[in-house]
Formats: sequence, C-alpha cells, structure tokens
Amino acid sequence: MSKVKIGPQTMLYPMPAVLIGTMINNRPNFMTAAWCSIASFTPPAVAVAIQKKRYTLEGIQETKVFSVNVPSSDMAKAVDYCGIYSGRNKDKSSIFTLSYGDLKSAPLIDECPVSLECTLIESLDLGSHTLIVGEIAETYLDEECTVNNKPAALKIDPLIFVPGTLEYFKLGNVVGRAYRIGKEE
Amino acid sequence: MSKVKIGPQTMLYPMPAVLIGTMINNRPNFMTAAWCSIASFTPPAVAVAIQKKRYTLEGIQETKVFSVNVPSSDMAKAVDYCGIYSGRNKDKSSIFTLSYGDLKSAPLIDECPVSLECTLIESLDLGSHTLIVGEIAETYLDEECTVNNKPAALKIDPLIFVPGTLEYFKLGNVVGRAYRIGKEE
Repeated sequence: MSKVKIGPQTMLYPMPAVLIGTMINNRPNFMTAAWCSIASFTPPAVAVAIQKKRYTLEGIQETKVFSVNVPSSDMAKAVDYCGIYSGRNKDKSSIFTLSYGDLKSAPLIDECPVSLECTLIESLDLGSHTLIVGEIAETYLDEECTVNNKPAALKIDPLIFVPGTLEYFKLGNVVGRAYRIGKEE
Repeated sequence: MSKVKIGPQTMLYPMPAVLIGTMINNRPNFMTAAWCSIASFTPPAVAVAIQKKRYTLEGIQETKVFSVNVPSSDMAKAVDYCGIYSGRNKDKSSIFTLSYGDLKSAPLIDECPVSLECTLIESLDLGSHTLIVGEIAETYLDEECTVNNKPAALKIDPLIFVPGTLEYFKLGNVVGRAYRIGKEE
C-alpha cells in the first residue's frame, strides 16, 4: 500500500459549499455547510451535519423547515462570510435577495441557481454534530442554467470546498458520462 | 425570483463519486456512491445513503465495517463500472489492488489517494434508502498527494459526479481561500 495512516480525519473530496437557510427569531439566517448530501430518493431527502452550538440548528429545530441553496462560484465571498460569522452576532438577512415558497418560512436565495425547500424529518445526535435530514418539498432551478431542459452543471457553476488546504474550487473538465463509460470495453 | 419549481429533486452540486468497500460472503465488493458526506467531527464520522436492495448494504449490516475510497479522475471507468453492476452478479474483488487496515475486514483500494476505514455506528431507515453512519477509525492518504504536509486537492484529483446530465468532472480552478475571503472588505 502506497498510502500512510494520518489518523481519523474528516476528509472527503469534493464537498459542496452550500448555504443553509432558516428563520431564527423571525429573521432569515444563512449558514455555510460543506457536510451535506442527498440522503434518500423516496422520499427525496437531504442530510446536513450541523455543529450543535450553531445558531442555525436552533432555527431548524424550532421551525422544522430549512433551505439548502447551491451558490455559483462567483458568490464565494458571501458564502465564506456566512461560514465565518454567526447569526447571533451578525445580521445576514440582507446579504441576498430572498423569496419564500410553499413552506412559507424557509428563506430561499434568489442568487443561488438551485434551492431545495425542506421539512425536517429526522435529527440524529452524533456527538459534536447533529445530522439533520430534511424531506425535499420543492426544488427551484434557474431556467438559464439548463441545456435541453436539463440542469447544466457548468452553468450552475457550483462552488466546491476541499478540506485540508481549505480552498474553494470551480468545476473543471468533463471526464465522461455516468452509467455509460463503465459499460465500454 | 428568477427560478422555477421543478418538483422535489435529489439535486445537489457537486457530489463526490466514491467507492464503498465491504466484505460480502467472504469476498471484497465495491459500490459507487455519490450520496456521501462527512457527518460529525467528534467522533469523526461519515454518512452514506444506500438503496435498501443494494448488495453492499447486506455486507455492511453483517460485518459492521466498511471503507470509503476517494478515486482520482483517471479511475472514472472503473468507478462507473462499480456503480452499474451489482456484486450479486459480478465479482468486483480483483478490479483494484487491495489492502486491509486495523479493522481487518474493510477492503481499502490502493489506487485511491484517500481511504476512510469505518465502523458502523448508526443506521437510519429513510424509505428507499438507508443512511448509514460510520465512525472513521483511520484515514489513509497517498503521501505523493501532499504539499507542505497537507493533502493537495489537485494532486488527489478527485472524481466529481453531477446529477441531471449524469456526468463526471474534474476539479477546476481555485476560487479562493476558505475562512479568509469572507473577511476581506
């Protein structure tokens, strides 16, 4: 084996850099999260690991709704800001243009090309973090980020986070088609 | 709002394309997963959503250990193969060079620059998928993928999956430093 042990590390490549939106004390607030993944197809669900002391967790546990917003790479500075500063000390309600969907109290970020509107269905206490699972009630997509009616990743231009060196990246070149290149001889 | 409703979709950008390793019926097996995220810092943990009918889930539930292997982009064809074909019908034990760490029965892929060796700590039934949470017992890193003793994302060269158009991508350009650009005026 050419690899070396480096002790248990929270290392995964790549990670998304998304904005978790919630209402707290009647004010919209946003937290940056990189520990986020789709969790189920039926029901459609998303999981987010949130440190227990986070202000956002209070809002989600109280309102039972939240949003997951996928920013484009040109929003990196605002995304980083929302990861550095807590809503306890900074009012983040006017950084973005906001909308509300059917769930009414999950703030959606207009500037983000993709937003998921979610209702809390599970909360798993793991230690330092609570893994919250939200059923995706609705998905919002910027129509300009499609090609042939399909969401086009390079138009969405998502922000990517990597651990270790703590950097944000853009998507690079296409490597191949999934469910296809594995079938080639 | 410039976005349109497209119904609840399991859309998140980007997703990792990782290989989940487990022993099943005394044979190493590998499944491709894109629904995978770090879940906690203390204990260090990772969450993976696995469709209930998957062969891999049987192995994890039986042995209580598994690996999460981060492939580099030049492994795309093998990664896609492991996502298309089930271990029930195809023997995937000799696709990669394998090693075993302290947990003994979590097969680690030598060709992958990063591997997490995990013990199952939680299993959450969500419907079509079970969200498994593994405590990261050890992390293995290819020493050639470091710069100044830190893991270097562009050397790891991870494979990225995007939903919708179902494509694999490479990392692109650096956008900025996390926990820094948000502090700039």
